[in-house]
Amino acid sequence: MIQTQDIKRPPKSVSEAVLKVGAASATSTLSRLGIRNAAILGPVSWTPGKAIAGPALTLQFMPKREDLYGADEYADPEKQLHRHVLYHAQAGDIVVVDARGDMKSGVFGDMMMTYFKGKGGLGVVIDGCLRDYPNLKKLDLGYWVNGFTPNFHTQVDLMPFAVNVPIACGGVTVMPGDIIVADDDGAVVVPQAMAEQVIEHSSKHHEWEDFSRERLSEGGDLRRYYPLSDAARPEYEAWKATQRRK
Amino acid sequence: MIQTQDIKRPPKSVSEAVLKVGAASATSTLSRLGIRNAAILGPVSWTPGKAIAGPALTLQFMPKREDLYGADEYADPEKQLHRHVLYHAQAGDIVVVDARGDMKSGVFGDMMMTYFKGKGGLGVVIDGCLRDYPNLKKLDLGYWVNGFTPNFHTQVDLMPFAVNVPIACGGVTVMPGDIIVADDDGAVVVPQAMAEQVIEHSSKHHEWEDFSRERLSEGGDLRRYYPLSDAARPEYEAWKATQRRK
Amino acid sequence: MIQTQDIKRPPKSVSEAVLKVGAASATSTLSRLGIRNAAILGPVSWTPGKAIAGPALTLQFMPKREDLYGADEYADPEKQLHRHVLYHAQAGDIVVVDARGDMKSGVFGDMMMTYFKGKGGLGVVIDGCLRDYPNLKKLDLGYWVNGFTPNFHTQVDLMPFAVNVPIACGGVTVMPGDIIVADDDGAVVVPQAMAEQVIEHSSKHHEWEDFSRERLSEGGDLRRYYPLSDAARPEYEAWKATQRRK
Amino acid sequence: MIQTQDIKRPPKSVSEAVLKVGAASATSTLSRLGIRNAAILGPVSWTPGKAIAGPALTLQFMPKREDLYGADEYADPEKQLHRHVLYHAQAGDIVVVDARGDMKSGVFGDMMMTYFKGKGGLGVVIDGCLRDYPNLKKLDLGYWVNGFTPNFHTQVDLMPFAVNVPIACGGVTVMPGDIIVADDDGAVVVPQAMAEQVIEHSSKHHEWEDFSRERLSEGGDLRRYYPLSDAARPEYEAWKATQRRK
Amino acid sequence: MIQTQDIKRPPKSVSEAVLKVGAASATSTLSRLGIRNAAILGPVSWTPGKAIAGPALTLQFMPKREDLYGADEYADPEKQLHRHVLYHAQAGDIVVVDARGDMKSGVFGDMMMTYFKGKGGLGVVIDGCLRDYPNLKKLDLGYWVNGFTPNFHTQVDLMPFAVNVPIACGGVTVMPGDIIVADDDGAVVVPQAMAEQVIEHSSKHHEWEDFSRERLSEGGDLRRYYPLSDAARPEYEAWKATQRRK
Amino acid sequence: MIQTQDIKRPPKSVSEAVLKVGAASATSTLSRLGIRNAAILGPVSWTPGKAIAGPALTLQFMPKREDLYGADEYADPEKQLHRHVLYHAQAGDIVVVDARGDMKSGVFGDMMMTYFKGKGGLGVVIDGCLRDYPNLKKLDLGYWVNGFTPNFHTQVDLMPFAVNVPIACGGVTVMPGDIIVADDDGAVVVPQAMAEQVIEHSSKHHEWEDFSRERLSEGGDLRRYYPLSDAARPEYEAWKATQRRK
Repeated sequence: MIQTQDIKRPPKSVSEAVLKVGAASATSTLSRLGIRNAAILGPVSWTPGKAIAGPALTLQFMPKREDLYGADEYADPEKQLHRHVLYHAQAGDIVVVDARGDMKSGVFGDMMMTYFKGKGGLGVVIDGCLRDYPNLKKLDLGYWVNGFTPNFHTQVDLMPFAVNVPIACGGVTVMPGDIIVADDDGAVVVPQAMAEQVIEHSSKHHEWEDFSRERLSEGGDLRRYYPLSDAARPEYEAWKATQRRK
Repeated sequence: MIQTQDIKRPPKSVSEAVLKVGAASATSTLSRLGIRNAAILGPVSWTPGKAIAGPALTLQFMPKREDLYGADEYADPEKQLHRHVLYHAQAGDIVVVDARGDMKSGVFGDMMMTYFKGKGGLGVVIDGCLRDYPNLKKLDLGYWVNGFTPNFHTQVDLMPFAVNVPIACGGVTVMPGDIIVADDDGAVVVPQAMAEQVIEHSSKHHEWEDFSRERLSEGGDLRRYYPLSDAARPEYEAWKATQRRK
Repeated sequence: MIQTQDIKRPPKSVSEAVLKVGAASATSTLSRLGIRNAAILGPVSWTPGKAIAGPALTLQFMPKREDLYGADEYADPEKQLHRHVLYHAQAGDIVVVDARGDMKSGVFGDMMMTYFKGKGGLGVVIDGCLRDYPNLKKLDLGYWVNGFTPNFHTQVDLMPFAVNVPIACGGVTVMPGDIIVADDDGAVVVPQAMAEQVIEHSSKHHEWEDFSRERLSEGGDLRRYYPLSDAARPEYEAWKATQRRK
Repeated sequence: MIQTQDIKRPPKSVSEAVLKVGAASATSTLSRLGIRNAAILGPVSWTPGKAIAGPALTLQFMPKREDLYGADEYADPEKQLHRHVLYHAQAGDIVVVDARGDMKSGVFGDMMMTYFKGKGGLGVVIDGCLRDYPNLKKLDLGYWVNGFTPNFHTQVDLMPFAVNVPIACGGVTVMPGDIIVADDDGAVVVPQAMAEQVIEHSSKHHEWEDFSRERLSEGGDLRRYYPLSDAARPEYEAWKATQRRK
Repeated sequence: MIQTQDIKRPPKSVSEAVLKVGAASATSTLSRLGIRNAAILGPVSWTPGKAIAGPALTLQFMPKREDLYGADEYADPEKQLHRHVLYHAQAGDIVVVDARGDMKSGVFGDMMMTYFKGKGGLGVVIDGCLRDYPNLKKLDLGYWVNGFTPNFHTQVDLMPFAVNVPIACGGVTVMPGDIIVADDDGAVVVPQAMAEQVIEHSSKHHEWEDFSRERLSEGGDLRRYYPLSDAARPEYEAWKATQRRK
Repeated sequence: MIQTQDIKRPPKSVSEAVLKVGAASATSTLSRLGIRNAAILGPVSWTPGKAIAGPALTLQFMPKREDLYGADEYADPEKQLHRHVLYHAQAGDIVVVDARGDMKSGVFGDMMMTYFKGKGGLGVVIDGCLRDYPNLKKLDLGYWVNGFTPNFHTQVDLMPFAVNVPIACGGVTVMPGDIIVADDDGAVVVPQAMAEQVIEHSSKHHEWEDFSRERLSEGGDLRRYYPLSDAARPEYEAWKATQRRK
């Protein structure tokens, strides 16, 4: 019987805080902390407006080799590793798949994703494809994928190979349990051990940003308002006072 | 005068049945019948929610050679083969174009597609581009294409070369008259001679699927409900009885 | 202090007339005037239905070289050239960026685009990415880009290098001040000196097009109605008379 | 029994004259005659120093479809169309193959090429691969291919589909019987009907070229010697006189 | 201290027999045994004429993540996993590297390869690059790589991640200890458990091949001599008798 | 009349010292000095064994626009900028060309390169193609290019645009006058201002390398000899003494 490892999850509060940071701030903060590029390249949001954050369950595909993944394995669904990664799913989890950029394999379909949703899963990040889009659209999950295909997962060139092992997805190494934050800009990998740092750095938000955005949208000078110049600070203080009265 | 061949169409009922099968089931059934990959790769749906099935009229483009496709040919629209494929259009037809993945040629524009719609055409599958998207959006046709371009069809690198001949589109060989089924997952080629088999195989649908989907969405165990285990069968029978009473 | 050149703008009326021509007619007319391919390949519309035309402010990125674009430059925002191109922005302008097709650099984010909108900017054409899509969606600007990324502009491989110089964008050379017309079909470069010609050629529109479109949509013969045949002309004249009475 | 058409060959003298023109002059002359790009892109010379010219036998591959190219066809070698194109081979012929850029199919191997050589074939141009390179190297044939692979021709994704039909090879349309000229620069397609023109244009060779090359190699001024300036003509005449005496 | 696993090697005689089979016969035999594609795509021979076979030591690279592969690791060479794979090298071994197709990382340089040669290594197969080509050319090793680069292995985007684990190289899954056979056609993966079968199948060589090749090279009929027809058998028998007398 | 700027050349001795450093050491040293990637990706050596170093003359191509580069310009060769970059050539110079990766433009041909050689030029680095390979092979120049094509420089999609301006070549920014060092590993850009530093760092060569290479080639332990361990130092000292006596 196949046994695969579970992941060590960060506290829920950490994922929630990372969600507030957002993908854009997460990758730029990580860049300043020494992680040059934490943004997964390839998978894009097919669920506009959706934003999620949570620990990564990982699934690794490899080029199909018929001596390793034979026809007889279909007979026993338990040997299909893409099922196993979902067995580990808990509320708040995100499945990240190394599908090698393949556009001919629909990694998960309707029933698999329904099950994942039923267990509280948030969404998937795949450098490859999903399948059954007409049905998947009805589920309240987030999908960051390269696209969709009618083919099933092992139909053409791939086979599932391992669960909850380190993978590469879209040019970024993902360790099982790393925190994924994904929104309209894309998906970013926050190493679990760096999450607190990312949260702290990003929270030092410039409180004058709303003021500046307002001024810029009225045609204000970029040099004066972004970043906030000393010259504009009294104007900002006055604005802030007004805001408080509202 | 240019004469091009028409296609041999399957009975309407066959296309209708293939539409019910859907793209995903069609390609996986064909895979089990020995056709490794029937899914066209490249063209994606630009008309979300749209699903069509029908016989393929085919149009082949080739790299432009000025000695074969001269400026003088523009003078006589009748020499433009992309018009000729549309002359064959009947209600329920789908035009499939081998545009060689070219992103600089808008195979059809506004007037051509209006004419195709007027004749009852269902949609087009092109491993290349359409043109006049602002107007094409208003027509009730399905578009599976690589993208859109403002360029016209012979402006840059291609010329139309043949009508209703075997073509390759997105890595799949398409014979004139093959049945195309296309939806949000993509477009699939069902060889005309295999359509009945595909319909029959796919129709052996697992009647417990609705039951299982319901249970999975409530957090039910994948091993118990998909595929339906013997242990869950009594539960399913009870559910079915309840359903009937509704 | 960095000084960059402004552009010479065409009269507003010219941009307005080019907008009426549209991207598709502009590139086909230019093709007939000897410009083989004026359509930018790569950036696609992320703001469906949006159509804009105006003079090009240009921004050139180059591969990052740490001896030329050091860490200390971040300290002084004035050295960031992507800000400088926006300083030149006037109502009706379009920013065109040579981002070398890079998918890891978010050329502009939320605050930059807010400022650009505040100055009356119409939109951007980038053979690369934007950043902060969740916020950018709220601004009434047009975006023709290859995609979005959470990374900031100099995070990975690029650095801004020059403003309002000749650039290549999506395989087309763009001179500062050239007129860009962009819609759902894509973005087209109209050389400033050829704008009048393009407008004139394109305006010789076939007044029978509406008539023909109506007939084609009813199943009319393409050979009869497009282009309008002599045989159909009386029918057209009659239709025109009817139209006038409406 | 499969019957495929032979080609109409130009006189030997024409191929010989085209060989003297060479690939570089052929494509530039064709460019001036209105054929924008006659150079096949992808296949490169694997037999350095080899230069050949002759009429094209063509072979078209298509994506493999198991219902069209079944296992039983292997039983009868006569159904393998890549053999049939070679049946037509005559002394001086060149086989051009549309292998769709595929890198997993070895279009011909050792025995096929030995047979082709035995019939007087000159070489092959394939936008794909050959097989059995260790043996092919021993034959005195010219190979312009994308590479080599150990796989046989129908092992992975392709099937041979037609012989001596128009094909596209490396972005150029090749008609059966067109004259191919190939050397270290690559392979060029000379339309049969334009061969005389190409020969004539190219033969107007600048007789001062050898003189100029000599001067340039000694550090002579490019403006003076290439093209030959009026100022340098007396010097050239003197040189020519000297040459004659040698 | 880093400990990595060694591989289980097949008997030397097996590798020797596989070498005689050669890459082309190995992949076609495997294809008939159900392994669709055993040919590694990407790495090509940079040592023409060289042919090797032996068990695979494997090295896996992953996208560099600075929190996992820090600057301090350089201080201790023992942490560099590309050294560790070489520690396992024995006479007759081949190193296969999953370098993810990266062209900016020189996986091994001069000193590493000298050491590998010193231990009796045969060669390397890398879907990526080597470094120090001027020196590597002097060693009697076989190189199947995508190319060469002056960069060192972790300079740009990769880090070594694991030794003697299953890897993907050029689209084929390689298990540690699988037998690699590589020659001018490319590199092929023979699963260790299938080696005997491959050897046996391939050894049923058609003894008439030399005869047929001779006849074909003299212009003999392909239909008569390849495969050997019954009609030509007496001729072959006579030839064989003659050969014996030589 | 077109006037283009010359470059400021480093002393000959600097180029000579950089040549001794070699491409591999240059890029790794630069990496340690903060320049992440100085290796040009794309152009590879077509002149094996050749190694050169010298200041960069730069030539920039742009996508052809017929209004900017008209047919009439051919009439006057002086308007062809690829000639102008050669006018600046001095003994020891290297021409680096931004050809945008285009494979259809032969940037220079026979006569141009003969002239360049005549002036003492060392070689060219082009992210694109050369033309007239049969003749170019005879010149003693170094060629680092993506390939060869029979097409001339402006035949298909490009036009020369500027001389001795900053360019991007193969993903690296090259400033006019930067020192290029190119060998079998590829071409590397050494910023002129950093050349001394690179030379100095690289010259701190480990004098024990020859000793270690000898030991490694005899099967010595990598851990003992590379880098040289304290344990092996006495052995090395003894070896050194022996060497001296030779």
